[in-house]
Amino acid sequence: MKPRIITISREYGSGGREIGRKVAQALGIDFYDKELISEAAKVSGLDENLIREVEETRAALPFFNLPTLSQTSGDGYAAPLNVQDQAYLAESQAIRAAADKGPCLIVGRAADYVLAGRADCLNVFVYAGLDVRIKRVMERAGADEAGAKKTISRVDRSRAAYYHYYTGQEWGLAKNYHVALDSGYLGTEGCVKAIVGIAQEE
Amino acid sequence: MKPRIITISREYGSGGREIGRKVAQALGIDFYDKELISEAAKVSGLDENLIREVEETRAALPFFNLPTLSQTSGDGYAAPLNVQDQAYLAESQAIRAAADKGPCLIVGRAADYVLAGRADCLNVFVYAGLDVRIKRVMERAGADEAGAKKTISRVDRSRAAYYHYYTGQEWGLAKNYHVALDSGYLGTEGCVKAIVGIAQEE
Repeated sequence: MKPRIITISREYGSGGREIGRKVAQALGIDFYDKELISEAAKVSGLDENLIREVEETRAALPFFNLPTLSQTSGDGYAAPLNVQDQAYLAESQAIRAAADKGPCLIVGRAADYVLAGRADCLNVFVYAGLDVRIKRVMERAGADEAGAKKTISRVDRSRAAYYHYYTGQEWGLAKNYHVALDSGYLGTEGCVKAIVGIAQEE
Repeated sequence: MKPRIITISREYGSGGREIGRKVAQALGIDFYDKELISEAAKVSGLDENLIREVEETRAALPFFNLPTLSQTSGDGYAAPLNVQDQAYLAESQAIRAAADKGPCLIVGRAADYVLAGRADCLNVFVYAGLDVRIKRVMERAGADEAGAKKTISRVDRSRAAYYHYYTGQEWGLAKNYHVALDSGYLGTEGCVKAIVGIAQEE
């Protein structure tokens, strides 16, 4: 069966977002990355700026593993969720709404896990060697080598902690995806071709 | 650059060996799996039956993490290697000899690690969901479900321990490979097409 939905999880600096955009273009399907923020605001009623701020804080500081709150206390009253969890739930709603709407490609936000159980998802992980990622981040952000290295390490730690906190699983384990590709080895175009080929093959 | 050498690491029951054989056929390159045992005997002078026995014991019992032996003691004398390590070194020699000889595909035996540093290797990991693997092992070995499950768990533990013992790295982490594919999702033919496509693309 051809997948209707493609999710891309990616290491920072691996070019996974660019690869996702090109795959979506090649397949003529919708593309969601930052677009999910306003969608999440719409479906949840949460403030768009709040969700954006949570995302930016998460990227700037390592994601903080808050103790999981039980959503209902013993007497049936809902315990208040922290703002991170609210944003996660809102984005998850947006991801499910996007997937229901039509064929699309979704970058990040543990979409593979949010959509688990759907048979029409192709879940992809994109990664690359540290040297390749440093080079890309230096070019993209105009950072020096030490700065790029520091950012990569921080964002990766944050993404791994985010993924683990919400899914209980390890980030970057091949088994959690249908396909995992080294963009440093294959190149951006090589990854795009591989994913498009697989998506059209099924 | 097109890869000259393809290595395939695979979960037990994922069909990785069959995929490897078909990829080698499609590309018209040599295929090494059990063939490495006699090659290892030739290059090392070790007895072929001894190497085979070590492999079979490893598959039948979880690989035992023996303490790493220093190959030379303080006074410069070589400490004797245990038989597992001897077989590993002999197979590593055979893998390097095969890679030097010409384009080929090598299944298992941590070949990705043995050949690390060569720029002409494409390292692939093949895995699948447990249900798919149980079905394949039941068909292939005529085992019942409980038996197949037990074998899968034992062989996987053994492969993971073997990989970790000799490489110091975790088995099945996407980052250790250039491409990782879920054969349950893609199917044998889907995996073959994806690998051949990638190998011809570079």
